[in-house]
Amino acid sequence: MHLNDWLDEQVPAISRELEAINRAEFFRERTIGFAGKEKVKRLIHQLRSALFPGIYERERINEDQAGILIHNSVRLAAMTLDELAQCAYRECCTKDTQQRREPCGECARRAAQVVRTTIGALPTLRRQLQADIQAAYYGDPAATSPEEIMLSYPTFEAISIHRLAHVIHQCQLPMIPRMMSEYAHQRTGIDIHPGATIGESFFIDHGTGVVIGETCTIGNHVKIYQGVTLGARSFDLDADGNPVKGVKRHPDIDDHVVIYAGATVLGGDTRIGHHSIIGGNVWLTRSVPPYSMVHNAQPSPAIRDVSPKTQQEL
Amino acid sequence: MHLNDWLDEQVPAISRELEAINRAEFFRERTIGFAGKEKVKRLIHQLRSALFPGIYERERINEDQAGILIHNSVRLAAMTLDELAQCAYRECCTKDTQQRREPCGECARRAAQVVRTTIGALPTLRRQLQADIQAAYYGDPAATSPEEIMLSYPTFEAISIHRLAHVIHQCQLPMIPRMMSEYAHQRTGIDIHPGATIGESFFIDHGTGVVIGETCTIGNHVKIYQGVTLGARSFDLDADGNPVKGVKRHPDIDDHVVIYAGATVLGGDTRIGHHSIIGGNVWLTRSVPPYSMVHNAQPSPAIRDVSPKTQQEL
Amino acid sequence: MHLNDWLDEQVPAISRELEAINRAEFFRERTIGFAGKEKVKRLIHQLRSALFPGIYERERINEDQAGILIHNSVRLAAMTLDELAQCAYRECCTKDTQQRREPCGECARRAAQVVRTTIGALPTLRRQLQADIQAAYYGDPAATSPEEIMLSYPTFEAISIHRLAHVIHQCQLPMIPRMMSEYAHQRTGIDIHPGATIGESFFIDHGTGVVIGETCTIGNHVKIYQGVTLGARSFDLDADGNPVKGVKRHPDIDDHVVIYAGATVLGGDTRIGHHSIIGGNVWLTRSVPPYSMVHNAQPSPAIRDVSPKTQQEL
Repeated sequence: MHLNDWLDEQVPAISRELEAINRAEFFRERTIGFAGKEKVKRLIHQLRSALFPGIYERERINEDQAGILIHNSVRLAAMTLDELAQCAYRECCTKDTQQRREPCGECARRAAQVVRTTIGALPTLRRQLQADIQAAYYGDPAATSPEEIMLSYPTFEAISIHRLAHVIHQCQLPMIPRMMSEYAHQRTGIDIHPGATIGESFFIDHGTGVVIGETCTIGNHVKIYQGVTLGARSFDLDADGNPVKGVKRHPDIDDHVVIYAGATVLGGDTRIGHHSIIGGNVWLTRSVPPYSMVHNAQPSPAIRDVSPKTQQEL
Repeated sequence: MHLNDWLDEQVPAISRELEAINRAEFFRERTIGFAGKEKVKRLIHQLRSALFPGIYERERINEDQAGILIHNSVRLAAMTLDELAQCAYRECCTKDTQQRREPCGECARRAAQVVRTTIGALPTLRRQLQADIQAAYYGDPAATSPEEIMLSYPTFEAISIHRLAHVIHQCQLPMIPRMMSEYAHQRTGIDIHPGATIGESFFIDHGTGVVIGETCTIGNHVKIYQGVTLGARSFDLDADGNPVKGVKRHPDIDDHVVIYAGATVLGGDTRIGHHSIIGGNVWLTRSVPPYSMVHNAQPSPAIRDVSPKTQQEL
Repeated sequence: MHLNDWLDEQVPAISRELEAINRAEFFRERTIGFAGKEKVKRLIHQLRSALFPGIYERERINEDQAGILIHNSVRLAAMTLDELAQCAYRECCTKDTQQRREPCGECARRAAQVVRTTIGALPTLRRQLQADIQAAYYGDPAATSPEEIMLSYPTFEAISIHRLAHVIHQCQLPMIPRMMSEYAHQRTGIDIHPGATIGESFFIDHGTGVVIGETCTIGNHVKIYQGVTLGARSFDLDADGNPVKGVKRHPDIDDHVVIYAGATVLGGDTRIGHHSIIGGNVWLTRSVPPYSMVHNAQPSPAIRDVSPKTQQEL
């Protein structure tokens, strides 16, 4: 049978089966599934154009036009966020998919509140991000200027999106903050849950593989290297075997702590005291006092047996 | 000399040299080099639109249109896969570059078989992926809904592309499955070889840095965190010093195993028994029995020497 | 108050505040902020089209057209690099933002030198990259052809961009090389500072999370796995508390060394002797002699306590 004949014969039934599964499993609980990913990306672009005009544009802008660009970006961001937020709230406030298409006054009111809080927070966020840029400049001898941080450091991408997502997350808007943090994760390898609380002058160097959990708190002047996990050690299940949500399960990191590459720090009652240094590849599930130095023993080298047939053997 | 004059003088010779190297080293063994990357990306988009209509579109679709979208996506995916598969087979079946441009009946027949197998497998894959979504929802207290998994969890992106690539890989189609898995790797930091066999209800949390090798087998209800390597310990070289291909060299992970962040498990005869837990940063090249608990010792903290001149010292 | 009324009232002041912060903190030290990211991406595409015609195009090209494609790509790359380099030098040579818009003879002269050096180096780079492709083919039993390396191995993306960025970095052009390396880092999770010196036949398998620091040197035939850090152990601060720039602070890796997943090797006076093997998850801040074998002890498995209420506990 020719492929086209086979397709003509089989595709209708396959398609109907796929549609039925989607209707049963997924459409009933849809929130902002339709086209949400593209819109969240646009929101991030508009918010960052407002905060750092010029860095994210496709064409060079004239410095005199910066004011207009900022103004436009703020208005566009407000519009996009309003649209996303109304959509997210509306689809949560009813299970009737027909009603979800109608405007809803309560959803509009809550969305407007998210927009006001987020847009109103921009100048404060901009100042915080300037301190983060300085922290990267002082924290990395390879950095030659603050602008290099903005143009080529993943820490800047991750922390700028996190601080925006955190503000929106605190407004109790579902879904959107996590889509924002995952956008940053995809581009940087740095996965910060929007619920995490992060202090001033934060710097993640390189960053690939960093995970900062939802209930983590981080003080001021903290520096973290690639591959560091601030995660959960365990979690409780309810009577139905489902994980209990909303429990504190990630560590607290105090001021002026440095954590080297690949260290794993787990647990909601784990606290790293201020001015501590955690060495690379350390595995830690309990608290350490201020000014601690924690590092693994270094294995002694043995002489390698260079066998003729096997390329590598450990 | 002006730059343009220098370019006029030098570029022809430089270009000819580059062309000669490419002809000698690369054109002779081309498979689907030309424009393959874009087409593979398109294939993935079409297949996932068929499986999860609405999630990956640019514009919001009406729920009533889901059936049409699925049908169209299945047809488009079949067409793209047929084109890629014919191309991949044709360029393998002859070294004569002129002949590669001609249609070849045998290649068309094999390509059609790949299309039939892949399209026919979609409903089963869709059901498996629903179980993976549930595994993520039950496995992470931070997840608030199954839809959040689809919209913002890299595990969903990685496992949905892997299950598709694995079906195509089993059809012996060269090149395309690895291009699919590398697309997922680029976007998620999760590198699963399309040859790996993965059971039901699989969940990778965060995921950056995860590597799952070609000959790995993973049971049901397995959970893996970021930075986990299931890799090769060593491999043999043949008489010419080339690595011997196709040998079992990656571990087997049994049902209900949990592996924490940054653990490295290597070797084709390494088996992790069911219901075992492997702690973070563990280095393991031998088997452990069922219900094992394996974790590193935690180093004791020392008091840090805060020297005035050096910022950090380990 | 309606959201639009609130926006009309508040956005002008918020925008002015954002503009003022940007003028104070950022515009004064701008180098190539405006639209630089897009242009650097275009430069990378043009350079790689010249080196590997066909791999990166959107549409399939005819093999006979390869010569024209290479020639055009070289000319386009020269033009883009000239534009970026003039821009980067001009904005460094004056703090007067008005003057930065005027052409400057000295900047044009230096930019032309960068272009000549880079374009002139392409044939040599192309040959080096062929050796890197071969190293990947021999280094990974899962690789089925050299072309698979080009189409689906992140090592190829990372090392091809690194070798280009390194040539430009040696011309003392600010900013651009780091933007190039960060582009590669974003796509592969492999973060190689353009200052790092890397020998022939280099292979990074999988690669996510790899970090190679600015003053690192790597010999020939070195193989590195995902999550390996070749980083700094500490650095000095000057009298003002700023990090001292330009000091040797990353390790030296000699010929034929293999470093397994997740190992962290730190320090400017750390040297890994030739033919050594460093095991996964090792933490190392001192030198080891040639033919060394260094690996962690493996923890013994305990029997897991399967408690009824807690899903996982370490």
